[in-house]
Amino acid sequence: MKIALDVMGGDHAPEAHVEAAIKAVKAFPDLTITLVGNEEEIRPLLPANDPRLPILHTTEKIEDTDQPTTAVRRKKDSSMVLAVREVKEGRADAVISSGNTGALMTAGLLYVGRIQGIDRPALAPMLPTLDEKGFLLLDVGANMDGKPEHLLQYAIMGNTYMEMVRGIKQPRVGLLNVGTEAGKGNELTKAAFPLLEAGPFHFIGNVEARELLNGACDVVVCDGFSGNLVLKSVEGIAGSMFSLLKRELTKTFISKLAVALLKGRFKEIKQVMSYSEYGGASLFGLKAPVIKAHGSSVASSVYHTIAQAYEMVNQQVTTIIKTEVAKATKGSEEKGE
Amino acid sequence: MKIALDVMGGDHAPEAHVEAAIKAVKAFPDLTITLVGNEEEIRPLLPANDPRLPILHTTEKIEDTDQPTTAVRRKKDSSMVLAVREVKEGRADAVISSGNTGALMTAGLLYVGRIQGIDRPALAPMLPTLDEKGFLLLDVGANMDGKPEHLLQYAIMGNTYMEMVRGIKQPRVGLLNVGTEAGKGNELTKAAFPLLEAGPFHFIGNVEARELLNGACDVVVCDGFSGNLVLKSVEGIAGSMFSLLKRELTKTFISKLAVALLKGRFKEIKQVMSYSEYGGASLFGLKAPVIKAHGSSVASSVYHTIAQAYEMVNQQVTTIIKTEVAKATKGSEEKGE
Repeated sequence: MKIALDVMGGDHAPEAHVEAAIKAVKAFPDLTITLVGNEEEIRPLLPANDPRLPILHTTEKIEDTDQPTTAVRRKKDSSMVLAVREVKEGRADAVISSGNTGALMTAGLLYVGRIQGIDRPALAPMLPTLDEKGFLLLDVGANMDGKPEHLLQYAIMGNTYMEMVRGIKQPRVGLLNVGTEAGKGNELTKAAFPLLEAGPFHFIGNVEARELLNGACDVVVCDGFSGNLVLKSVEGIAGSMFSLLKRELTKTFISKLAVALLKGRFKEIKQVMSYSEYGGASLFGLKAPVIKAHGSSVASSVYHTIAQAYEMVNQQVTTIIKTEVAKATKGSEEKGE
Repeated sequence: MKIALDVMGGDHAPEAHVEAAIKAVKAFPDLTITLVGNEEEIRPLLPANDPRLPILHTTEKIEDTDQPTTAVRRKKDSSMVLAVREVKEGRADAVISSGNTGALMTAGLLYVGRIQGIDRPALAPMLPTLDEKGFLLLDVGANMDGKPEHLLQYAIMGNTYMEMVRGIKQPRVGLLNVGTEAGKGNELTKAAFPLLEAGPFHFIGNVEARELLNGACDVVVCDGFSGNLVLKSVEGIAGSMFSLLKRELTKTFISKLAVALLKGRFKEIKQVMSYSEYGGASLFGLKAPVIKAHGSSVASSVYHTIAQAYEMVNQQVTTIIKTEVAKATKGSEEKGE
């Protein structure tokens, strides 16, 4: 198996990426990782010439501030575009980047292409829960204005992923909504509810944003705008709460002392709320796994993302999604819907 | 001035409500509060026969689990409906309830009615920020599917409220969105952006959910579905984080000891994240203030909500909103929009 890794995107590139790749080829004996980036920077980080860690050299880079479509079109030699093209041209089975999310979505759509039967790809990160099992949220922004049938497709894709890659039997699929009762919500969620109810997965109904971190379900579907709001709320509120804790708990001498005693515990708490263990955000609905690792990814998070890509290829997630979507579409066509 | 107070809704009714009303008539010499509820329960809580705390007796109650429209139509003698009708029939200037939010919105719309020029009312709570100034979020669910012109009206109403009642000069008005750059978002936010840019208030552009608790702006406008998601994310994530803290920080003997030393600090943190100081959620766009106090309101939060209603009447917020909306509509009509 071969994975293309863009080693130029993210805050800790290329060190974190190269370190993760070295660890990954040790862990997975049948894996080769193509490191796409500046050879001059990569070479000194590699212990020896390893045929399973080839370098695809380039110096061009898509910046986080670049306008996605323009950048993908113009920066044809960028590490991200080259990495994605490795998949398109059959030299890799999956691609990972920690760079500009919009650009990766554009490049994925343009070069890897959509699975037949999927109208829109969905960006799907794992979010933390208090029981540390996490849940998959999709879409968080690949497609801002979702239609009911898109939400059904998201559910099929998310369900397949959680079952095949995360090993969850009968994942609980929920519809992000403003109340738990059926009939609640906006036009989109009201129309999506019956489609999801009839879908080929374990639909548990509406879930409210306040229950998400408590592990209300395994897969949460929503339009990209709503998902992005929730994703950024989780990030922002958790971050604000940590700032608040820091401010309040260091106000007096006694409290500083007490906090020193709690150092290990606070580390544990940050760990629970961190994303790094869960890997990156998959762009579902494309013909091969395209995965966005968090921009702040350190070596361990990049490693988890590589392991995730490995499992997605190994479990043939893309093929299964294709089959499941075809079945669901055929089913509704036969019913004359 | 007269305020009708439904003393049957919420977790701490009627004690919290009666206690708050007693305090409020002391604080505001020109205020009379009609206590709407079961006289047998209310009378023992009142120190003496106070002509400024009349009782409107009823035993019927709208439950939190009641379907809103049905409940308002059928339970005509419920404390909530009677309290709202006090306003409709000119015997009160504002109404407050801690009961069923949907029912209060329905009763408000039905009996108090919309201000001319406002297409949809908006439910607008204050949310906490780390600097403890708070921000106004609207709409959080009065109207699930917002149109661009609704968002403009929400901005005018929120701006008026923050200026007149909260005393903020030139409130910063932001559009809830998935990115800060203009042109980001879904169809709704893209279409609302230019309307808000031309609006009669200080529009600062898009704001992301992750910046809200850091005090990014004073008024945040969005459709009711999105606002409800964010509201419940803030409630839920803060709650989950407190559970997590409790779990992790009481795991060892040492940590329990340290937490004991930090008790005062944690109280402070909960205080910052609490809603009670900010009063209730106003239902803007109606002909008189209709305010929803939090269901878990204790006496101090009900008191703050009464003070808020008092200020809204005193500052003639409803009249100003009417004038401002008329001006804005006229302005855009003249421009041929």
